[in-house]
Amino acid sequence: MLSQKSLKHLNKIEQKKFRQAQGEFIVEGVKGVKEAMLAQANVVLLVIEKTKDSEPDFLDLINLATKNDILIEYCNEKEAKKLKTTETFPGILAVIKQPKVILNDFDGTIICLDGVKDPGNLGTIIRTADWFGVKSILLSEDCVDLYNPKAVRSTMGSIFHLNILESTNVVQDLTKLQKNGYVLNGMVMNGDKLDKVNKKNMNIYVFGSESHGIRPEVEKMLDNKYTILGCPSAGYPRPELGSKAGQAESLNVAVACGILLSKI
Amino acid sequence: MLSQKSLKHLNKIEQKKFRQAQGEFIVEGVKGVKEAMLAQANVVLLVIEKTKDSEPDFLDLINLATKNDILIEYCNEKEAKKLKTTETFPGILAVIKQPKVILNDFDGTIICLDGVKDPGNLGTIIRTADWFGVKSILLSEDCVDLYNPKAVRSTMGSIFHLNILESTNVVQDLTKLQKNGYVLNGMVMNGDKLDKVNKKNMNIYVFGSESHGIRPEVEKMLDNKYTILGCPSAGYPRPELGSKAGQAESLNVAVACGILLSKI
Repeated sequence: MLSQKSLKHLNKIEQKKFRQAQGEFIVEGVKGVKEAMLAQANVVLLVIEKTKDSEPDFLDLINLATKNDILIEYCNEKEAKKLKTTETFPGILAVIKQPKVILNDFDGTIICLDGVKDPGNLGTIIRTADWFGVKSILLSEDCVDLYNPKAVRSTMGSIFHLNILESTNVVQDLTKLQKNGYVLNGMVMNGDKLDKVNKKNMNIYVFGSESHGIRPEVEKMLDNKYTILGCPSAGYPRPELGSKAGQAESLNVAVACGILLSKI
Repeated sequence: MLSQKSLKHLNKIEQKKFRQAQGEFIVEGVKGVKEAMLAQANVVLLVIEKTKDSEPDFLDLINLATKNDILIEYCNEKEAKKLKTTETFPGILAVIKQPKVILNDFDGTIICLDGVKDPGNLGTIIRTADWFGVKSILLSEDCVDLYNPKAVRSTMGSIFHLNILESTNVVQDLTKLQKNGYVLNGMVMNGDKLDKVNKKNMNIYVFGSESHGIRPEVEKMLDNKYTILGCPSAGYPRPELGSKAGQAESLNVAVACGILLSKI
């Protein structure tokens, strides 16, 4: 029942190149689709597995879609298997227009990710920011694609609650924000103790990639550098790590971001 | 050059059943193998890609292995491709005997995971515990296998620094620990504010699975219940979430664990 054209279109959006050209992305599952509709994202198509259309969760979404004039296509089990989804097809997905975000949309505390490559980490950071009420995320040009299916899934629907800008020149964007009064704080391995953060500022917090940290061109712009201290007494002596760490060499970037946000 | 027997053995250990029967597991990559040897884990075999054996990192490990009488087998590129590793073979792996951990090895703060199924989350929690100097982790019988290759990789070598017990009966183990004076704290959705934790106690912190939380049989044993508060003003009104959350419904379990550990 799903048209060949739709099937082809859906499977193409799984590829970054086509996703960007088309300006669309996919969210899978009841939870993600529901969050998209509640947040009034621009849903252009719903695909629903016919055998599930009488389940209460699905019925709610079908009603909501009908009320909002959203196109619904139904598929059978065989067609569902042809969909290239991140895991087994959860019975529902939505095709959504990528929102156009500009720097002026930003408000309050800003998280900036510089070269974060892991889609799961990106998604988890978005979800955590949402939990702590942070509304603005700036992604450097070499971050993983925001609309990577794994990243979208890891946000658990929070992708629809924030303004997230995929920068084409993060140094330029950060310079503009600094000029507008923002203070640029970087999370590094050898900075000040995190507790010293001045919460009254308009703050940007920059996190680098786990393997390379913050790039030098961004690091030299920083107003402050902070570190999340581990437990120095935990490790056998590891002079190469300095005195700030336990035995682990670093924290996962999503965990570090969560700790920062819980403190501010 | 890699014997057929070794290749078969290695690929079998990738399966949980065989891994358990054999009491062995695999760690991949320079970082993981180095941590294993520094922590004096019981390494029974090193497999190294011949073309890389003159790189400095590899030479260090070969010297260390030779000094410790560890068997080394070399493989060529073609054989490397036959190895079922988590990603592209990074040129080195070690086969390691699973350590025998008992409850009496536990010391200080204990993290208990009840039904955590995602190997990446498990690995990240181990890495975070290591950073903050927590030495003891108790896994319920329905957690993901500790030696799952993805979990091992996500620990970034920290798996070798902690005592981690895969319980066969977590209710029984927690009962024993409570009798020995431990206080049982659970992380739940509607508990007290986290700041109230009594850090002077001998504390166990229990985290449940993301989808089902802490199981009822464990929850009824808890002495205290805590919640990590989000930002109540962040969301549009969502009465179903109560007043404790931003718009996100929950935190990722590894992020929640990191926030807890940063506070205690």
